[in-house]
Amino acid sequence: MMNGGGQPASKQSMRRHNLALVLRQVAASDSASRATVAARVGLTKATVSSLVEELRLAGLVVEHVPENQGRVGRPGGALALNPQGAAGVGVEVNVDYTAVCVADLTGAPRVRLTEHADNRGRDAEETLHSAGRLAARACAAARRAGLTPVQVTLGVPGLVHEDKVLHAPNLDWRHVPAGELLVRGLGRQRLAVSVDNEANLAAIGEFQARPAGAGASFLYVSGEIGIGAGLMVDGTLFRGGGFAGEIGHVTVLPDGPECGCGARGCLERYAGQDALLEAAALDSVSATRLGSAPAATATATRTGGGPGGGAGRSALQDPPAEADAPVERLAALAAEGDEAAVRALAVAGRALGVALSGAVNLLDPPEVVIGGIYARLAPWLIPSLQVQLHERVTSGRWRSDRLQVSGLGTEAAVRGAAGAGVQAILRDPSAYIDLTSPML
Amino acid sequence: MMNGGGQPASKQSMRRHNLALVLRQVAASDSASRATVAARVGLTKATVSSLVEELRLAGLVVEHVPENQGRVGRPGGALALNPQGAAGVGVEVNVDYTAVCVADLTGAPRVRLTEHADNRGRDAEETLHSAGRLAARACAAARRAGLTPVQVTLGVPGLVHEDKVLHAPNLDWRHVPAGELLVRGLGRQRLAVSVDNEANLAAIGEFQARPAGAGASFLYVSGEIGIGAGLMVDGTLFRGGGFAGEIGHVTVLPDGPECGCGARGCLERYAGQDALLEAAALDSVSATRLGSAPAATATATRTGGGPGGGAGRSALQDPPAEADAPVERLAALAAEGDEAAVRALAVAGRALGVALSGAVNLLDPPEVVIGGIYARLAPWLIPSLQVQLHERVTSGRWRSDRLQVSGLGTEAAVRGAAGAGVQAILRDPSAYIDLTSPML
Repeated sequence: MMNGGGQPASKQSMRRHNLALVLRQVAASDSASRATVAARVGLTKATVSSLVEELRLAGLVVEHVPENQGRVGRPGGALALNPQGAAGVGVEVNVDYTAVCVADLTGAPRVRLTEHADNRGRDAEETLHSAGRLAARACAAARRAGLTPVQVTLGVPGLVHEDKVLHAPNLDWRHVPAGELLVRGLGRQRLAVSVDNEANLAAIGEFQARPAGAGASFLYVSGEIGIGAGLMVDGTLFRGGGFAGEIGHVTVLPDGPECGCGARGCLERYAGQDALLEAAALDSVSATRLGSAPAATATATRTGGGPGGGAGRSALQDPPAEADAPVERLAALAAEGDEAAVRALAVAGRALGVALSGAVNLLDPPEVVIGGIYARLAPWLIPSLQVQLHERVTSGRWRSDRLQVSGLGTEAAVRGAAGAGVQAILRDPSAYIDLTSPML
Repeated sequence: MMNGGGQPASKQSMRRHNLALVLRQVAASDSASRATVAARVGLTKATVSSLVEELRLAGLVVEHVPENQGRVGRPGGALALNPQGAAGVGVEVNVDYTAVCVADLTGAPRVRLTEHADNRGRDAEETLHSAGRLAARACAAARRAGLTPVQVTLGVPGLVHEDKVLHAPNLDWRHVPAGELLVRGLGRQRLAVSVDNEANLAAIGEFQARPAGAGASFLYVSGEIGIGAGLMVDGTLFRGGGFAGEIGHVTVLPDGPECGCGARGCLERYAGQDALLEAAALDSVSATRLGSAPAATATATRTGGGPGGGAGRSALQDPPAEADAPVERLAALAAEGDEAAVRALAVAGRALGVALSGAVNLLDPPEVVIGGIYARLAPWLIPSLQVQLHERVTSGRWRSDRLQVSGLGTEAAVRGAAGAGVQAILRDPSAYIDLTSPML
């Protein structure tokens, strides 16, 4: 298999390639046997058996042997990814919260921690150390649950290049070596760390969470304080020169209000979380109506284990309810028919519709998925959003069902970050095996 | 080479694959010998020699043998694509002209015909028959020059699906079986016909004309009566669901003037050729100032052979100067400092800048190339265009040299269409060989 193209492959690279091939086949199959995997990947049964054994000893694969069968030889054992093996760790540092998610090899979230904090007012180093400590706590919980965290992916709302954040306007970060600073907060852990834009990771999370048979090409738009997009093309994220997806700074009105980026009339000024709350006359921290007495603020850290989820084997769950408090308040007001809230959402929906119809005309994605806070606010955004799409997408090619609402909401980025780690392990299991089994 | 993945290849598909492999290697190399080609593609010299012989007999490849060497065996002959062999034919039906270009295997344009006509006022069938006849004349001229036209690609300014035009607003076409109608105009010729959007083909033409070493990823924007874009990613055109590139209908001002598409404030209403001429108070047909007496109109068909170009072996050339007359007049007025012309171009440049900065924020293409009429008008568009890009591309990542001007101008689409035919031959030479040599 490795010898295509007339190039000789070393024994080592052959093993590396074939381990990944077999593991991916196990991941793609439902309870396949060694013989079935061998037939599908085109290797001999003996070779596959030895590779499966290596993956099993490394804890990446489990083999379920029927009760009426002996263990020797395992002729008919059903292979599956080990949900108690290696794990990916996602860390999301956003403007008003930090979140961590640990996912097992099957992609299921197993540990979930959120810290609500106004990261705008903090030093980047302090924010990342604190995020590293939160991730270390999540890793400890994952280890107690029998998992082995190996790969950390950090998501930030900004422009990322080689694990450095060049600019994150809403965090006021410039040239922050985010990967390095997160590692320091993590302490002495043998973890590989990479950094990516949070909307990119959210698009990956959305893709991973899609049901089998759903499309693999879509434009994902994530509403947070900032607005980011991810263009998924046949299951691969389009990155352009590295900084694609900044839909928040697409112009909606050339002479509109000034944006933090220096330009005027950006989408973010109409449909970003701050703009939305401001237009609805809500305080962005306390979620109270501006001018009224503030209620108790929701800045407390929640770390206790909430009610479990995730297929009954959750180690630690902490849904980020407080972080979404102002958005929940906005949704509640809109549900009550509050005029300012409904108007603010209609204006945001229209602005989103103008920007998205431009993106659809330019890129013609089969679907558009709105996520982040837009998932929660969809009922009030969608009417004006659809009007714009129907009016502006060229030649009436827009159909309402091309617009989808993410089921993950603000969870998408941290879930995608954890999933990106899992994908890295599945892509190259030998790196993980060599890392965890130095004696082999 | 064909047996990767454990799949057996039939002898026929092996030959097909290897013929293409060898031909592409000849195209990519500068005067390589059979031995060099064999080494590069990883086949034996004997196999390559027999494949080269087949390509040579089919007229796809030529071998230059040094004078002091006999012809037998040709050990050191330099291989090259045959500039007198198979040819690709590009046909462009645009709003105010129809153009044909025949390119030889090296991609060099060899025959070039243009017919200036107001295709807006014509029936689609009549327009396409007439385009077919023009193409037939170009093919006849190409045959007289020793070429063998085999593959026709038709470009139209509209939405194309499976060789049908679903909608071309500026031609007022809906559901036109364009490939079929063009074939009828072509008469009894053994030619394969395919249809594509003209901005897509222009982007391909731009890519093919780039000097070696230039980037293979860029956003190309073509100004005509309509405005189209093509996103080139590593040398491959991004097509989305099939209708990507409609940048002319990206919103510049949500409540702006109504567009032919039914929406408001589209880029085309500010920077399309008609909008530009109208803003400069020029008649779009006569190129005279509105209100003054019309000069002689430039609607005559030019088919005579003008002065040759194309590396000294041009069969027939007819640069489309008349078709560009109104644009030339606009450029001349702007060069004289005419206030209305200069203002119209500045407004168009600003609108282009708003739309393009959005596209750059979303897609981050390494370069943006403006072509079509924008190439000619670049000196007056670029200042206001650059201002917008510098102001609106996120976080000051815009550098002026990311904006390029196409050297092909309005030639790009028809050149790209001819080149697409050539690429089809190079991708699968056996189809051409089987077509032209039924006896083999």
